[in-house]
Amino acid sequence: MTLPLVGIAMGSQSDWPTMKAAAEVLDALDIAYETRIISAHRTPDRLFDYAETAAPRGLQAIIAGAGGAAHLPGMLAAKTRVPVLGVPVQSAALNGMDSLLSIVQMPKGIPVATFAIGKAGAANAALFAAAQIATTNNALAGRLEAWRASQADAVAEEPLDE
Amino acid sequence: MTLPLVGIAMGSQSDWPTMKAAAEVLDALDIAYETRIISAHRTPDRLFDYAETAAPRGLQAIIAGAGGAAHLPGMLAAKTRVPVLGVPVQSAALNGMDSLLSIVQMPKGIPVATFAIGKAGAANAALFAAAQIATTNNALAGRLEAWRASQADAVAEEPLDE
Amino acid sequence: MTLPLVGIAMGSQSDWPTMKAAAEVLDALDIAYETRIISAHRTPDRLFDYAETAAPRGLQAIIAGAGGAAHLPGMLAAKTRVPVLGVPVQSAALNGMDSLLSIVQMPKGIPVATFAIGKAGAANAALFAAAQIATTNNALAGRLEAWRASQADAVAEEPLDE
Amino acid sequence: MTLPLVGIAMGSQSDWPTMKAAAEVLDALDIAYETRIISAHRTPDRLFDYAETAAPRGLQAIIAGAGGAAHLPGMLAAKTRVPVLGVPVQSAALNGMDSLLSIVQMPKGIPVATFAIGKAGAANAALFAAAQIATTNNALAGRLEAWRASQADAVAEEPLDE
Amino acid sequence: MTLPLVGIAMGSQSDWPTMKAAAEVLDALDIAYETRIISAHRTPDRLFDYAETAAPRGLQAIIAGAGGAAHLPGMLAAKTRVPVLGVPVQSAALNGMDSLLSIVQMPKGIPVATFAIGKAGAANAALFAAAQIATTNNALAGRLEAWRASQADAVAEEPLDE
Amino acid sequence: MTLPLVGIAMGSQSDWPTMKAAAEVLDALDIAYETRIISAHRTPDRLFDYAETAAPRGLQAIIAGAGGAAHLPGMLAAKTRVPVLGVPVQSAALNGMDSLLSIVQMPKGIPVATFAIGKAGAANAALFAAAQIATTNNALAGRLEAWRASQADAVAEEPLDE
Amino acid sequence: MTLPLVGIAMGSQSDWPTMKAAAEVLDALDIAYETRIISAHRTPDRLFDYAETAAPRGLQAIIAGAGGAAHLPGMLAAKTRVPVLGVPVQSAALNGMDSLLSIVQMPKGIPVATFAIGKAGAANAALFAAAQIATTNNALAGRLEAWRASQADAVAEEPLDE
Amino acid sequence: MTLPLVGIAMGSQSDWPTMKAAAEVLDALDIAYETRIISAHRTPDRLFDYAETAAPRGLQAIIAGAGGAAHLPGMLAAKTRVPVLGVPVQSAALNGMDSLLSIVQMPKGIPVATFAIGKAGAANAALFAAAQIATTNNALAGRLEAWRASQADAVAEEPLDE
Repeated sequence: MTLPLVGIAMGSQSDWPTMKAAAEVLDALDIAYETRIISAHRTPDRLFDYAETAAPRGLQAIIAGAGGAAHLPGMLAAKTRVPVLGVPVQSAALNGMDSLLSIVQMPKGIPVATFAIGKAGAANAALFAAAQIATTNNALAGRLEAWRASQADAVAEEPLDE
Repeated sequence: MTLPLVGIAMGSQSDWPTMKAAAEVLDALDIAYETRIISAHRTPDRLFDYAETAAPRGLQAIIAGAGGAAHLPGMLAAKTRVPVLGVPVQSAALNGMDSLLSIVQMPKGIPVATFAIGKAGAANAALFAAAQIATTNNALAGRLEAWRASQADAVAEEPLDE
Repeated sequence: MTLPLVGIAMGSQSDWPTMKAAAEVLDALDIAYETRIISAHRTPDRLFDYAETAAPRGLQAIIAGAGGAAHLPGMLAAKTRVPVLGVPVQSAALNGMDSLLSIVQMPKGIPVATFAIGKAGAANAALFAAAQIATTNNALAGRLEAWRASQADAVAEEPLDE
Repeated sequence: MTLPLVGIAMGSQSDWPTMKAAAEVLDALDIAYETRIISAHRTPDRLFDYAETAAPRGLQAIIAGAGGAAHLPGMLAAKTRVPVLGVPVQSAALNGMDSLLSIVQMPKGIPVATFAIGKAGAANAALFAAAQIATTNNALAGRLEAWRASQADAVAEEPLDE
Repeated sequence: MTLPLVGIAMGSQSDWPTMKAAAEVLDALDIAYETRIISAHRTPDRLFDYAETAAPRGLQAIIAGAGGAAHLPGMLAAKTRVPVLGVPVQSAALNGMDSLLSIVQMPKGIPVATFAIGKAGAANAALFAAAQIATTNNALAGRLEAWRASQADAVAEEPLDE
Repeated sequence: MTLPLVGIAMGSQSDWPTMKAAAEVLDALDIAYETRIISAHRTPDRLFDYAETAAPRGLQAIIAGAGGAAHLPGMLAAKTRVPVLGVPVQSAALNGMDSLLSIVQMPKGIPVATFAIGKAGAANAALFAAAQIATTNNALAGRLEAWRASQADAVAEEPLDE
Repeated sequence: MTLPLVGIAMGSQSDWPTMKAAAEVLDALDIAYETRIISAHRTPDRLFDYAETAAPRGLQAIIAGAGGAAHLPGMLAAKTRVPVLGVPVQSAALNGMDSLLSIVQMPKGIPVATFAIGKAGAANAALFAAAQIATTNNALAGRLEAWRASQADAVAEEPLDE
Repeated sequence: MTLPLVGIAMGSQSDWPTMKAAAEVLDALDIAYETRIISAHRTPDRLFDYAETAAPRGLQAIIAGAGGAAHLPGMLAAKTRVPVLGVPVQSAALNGMDSLLSIVQMPKGIPVATFAIGKAGAANAALFAAAQIATTNNALAGRLEAWRASQADAVAEEPLDE
């Protein structure tokens, strides 16, 4: 069994349709990962446990998605030096603007790398994790460059009526 | 020595000019309180310790002020059943809109009672703590009603040029 | 018959689908409550009557929901020292941002404890009322802690595809 | 003594520097008015008294300015059929956006005519009151048209360096 | 034939579902009105013609609805001293926030009385026109007070499950 | 005397410190222009006159700056086929967000080319006018390319402490 | 074959339903154009190539639509002196406010003419391109004026129930 | 000479007071870096050159700060697989909200890790770069943990009057 390099954490089951986009990118790039539901508010002790073991277990990035008053990414970052990548999940009333500000506006001292609201952000967090690991992993660097080249090739020259 | 009924917590020393407005109201109403700096991000363990001892120590309300990605009120509320009153501190770039949304948009299950951005919110959190304690404390109820009456009396009939 | 400890007030019948989430939480925690439609704008005298009798009738909290230019919570708070818990109902055009600001940005002197926009806020206002009453009611404190523990237990370890 | 046709109400003394712009326009157009401080939150009974006597006393418009969770205009309108003209006073943290939404987003049934944030809004509320009264007052209609013509004449053809 | 006292103007046919709410209120209060489509941008000359004849024709209020960069109310107000009541129509992308700001933020000198975004605002503009005319029309004052009383009576005491 | 190719219009003298940035760019590129104060609201007839003569007088672009409920650019565009370039002037309360939305959100049929809030937008409107005229004027195209090259050359390689 | 005078560029196939509104206007005014998909992020080299050949190939305007962090219009403008007309495509979470600000808030030196969010903006960008070309093309000026007149004629006098 | 591991890029000299906070953190953690001014709009070719050489030169992260329509971080990310960390610089009119949305709302495929608006974001981007490099550099991991511990120790227990 391959040890996971990346953890995908989310505040609730309802965030999974968003966060799955991260898992799909990691699958495509052949990066081992694990998935966890960790509610900062309902299961704060689970959050602390997960964060405290992240570095010893060898995680190189934690992708954390949450919505509304989204405290999961920032609190994970408070408890581990493993890089935390925050994904603002689109919220019901405010379209994710609350999620975005709750994640990105961290005070000096504890960083959370923040990505776009919703699925695009989840996929990009995974691509970023890959880019980060690729800085010291040539094989992954190659796979990532191939992935980037193939997405460029997939852009048609002209739009088509549907 | 009187045991404190209310805790005033804040994310950093720089929040004190805002949160002092809460202390002044509690002083005026003769309610015992304590003040603490607790950074959710820089001192997460202190946050957990404070929250875990709040109920056993007899606190009846915690007033928590923070700015930006303000996680202190919500994380305290995650760890204690003592009522948490959140005060959004006005932030540098976004005028406290980030603080407000980070505090008020809590998911179902863990409530934070939120007040206005800045000093007015801090003072009102203290008044609310008083109102809450006054529901079972007749003496305080009397002092609170007197305070409310005196503020009504202080409203002049007509504006004055300055 | 048990006297109600909590009043649930709302600006119109159309707010009931939101505010019902508060009633359900109070039911679950076995807290007696009453429900009232009180329009600050269409029935201002009813508002004053309700507020003036709240303390004498023994209410320990009023949960008030309203949308748009939401004046119900603030005007109740102006007329009673009973703690008022405001719930911003999601509005048609502005998604509840108008409701939120109309409730939370109270001036110094008259506090309204504000919760999240919509059903989550209504449920949390009820949980907060419970927490507040529980500070001097051990039986309720026990029920609330059990409720909180059970919601923590209900968080699965890993997300499931649906 | 001339009976006032217009009432200028404001939530606190601190709103006077804004609302004075309304008084100055009414002076210029020779319309009798009165000024009152009426806090919806600190002096709710004064608000009800003022609104209830407005029509019998012959007021033809009430200009009401308030900031933050600005409830004064809407609550006056709830209690009188005299037209209420709301002026959002610029607030400390949110620049008056909270004041604006709290005043303009009234639900169907109770209208408040809303003007721009700050002094321009106060002056325009007074001009609007004049326009309204002028619909049945030819002398005032003449003065208003002269005022409008003179402000048009005051617009220079080309900008000047200062 | 009764001469219209109120004009209802709108920027396009697509605004009619919103503005119809104004017509319905005027019908209920038995106030004569006319309806016109006037696009500030596509038919600017029609706008000028309409505004220039409004006072001579005896209009006592113009209710003007528009969306997006909503210039109709402000440009009518620039060309007539008849009171202009602006209704921000809910826009496709920005939910009417653009409409609201384009109408309410008029500079000093030319007022537009602004109401809520959408149908509630249209209905309230009509109620406001009625209130304004009622200041010098006792019969209408009576009908308006009856309308207000009946809407108060229509508010149920308690919410009902549906 | 050279006939002006570009008109710079603004709503009031107070917009000139912003709009001067447009004049300076036109001077630098040796493009003849004229400056006018035209208030859409206080001098609507002047607006119509200016717009109606713009094409016959040979103007190839009108740069129009205004703040708040900024109607000048859109109303000019309603009355002339000469391209109108809108500059949102930074407003007192809302920082120009109202100006921006009032200018850019024009309905289908009448376009206004909109630029950034404030001086940068004014300068860029002038650069855009130059680029537009340069499409059929080789000499100006050369001057514009030289200007662009020189601004690129002016970017230092590394930042300097000050 | 007629050489294109206008290029319509867009960030992805998904922008075509919006940008097609530009093509339709150009068709109606008989202006030759080309359509291209150019992703600033996925195909940056294609962007540079397109921009570098735009002036030599005789393009007189480039209409560029993009959503979210919309960099296409600004980067095209950075690489060519041909006028760039930006269209903010409505985005999933933030309704195009992110697209609008990413396009319109260009720094001094490199202008992008920005239009409304969505289809109205795309159509208006095409009308603006026509207006710009018409400044030196009398035949097109005539067609544009006819188009404008016909849209004015199409505005009905009164709204119709549907 | 030590080869730089991190590049700090910024859109103009005026961004340096903000971005210096990143340099100071890298100095404190003894991480070699370089600083460059690269304007996406005024020097697009320099941007491409810098991005294309970033990976071959061994950079492990690029911290890129820009304001307004901030395209620098996204365009760098389009041209290199080296992780790009974006810092929204506070802008004049919109307080950095435009900068934030222009950086964070990247479409799927090209990620930019975004941090808070202003100096806190710049410092946190540097801390994040350190955390990222520390995942494969034990010495740096030690220095980073010491830095984190010392900032925790620096948080006083109680606030002090000043």
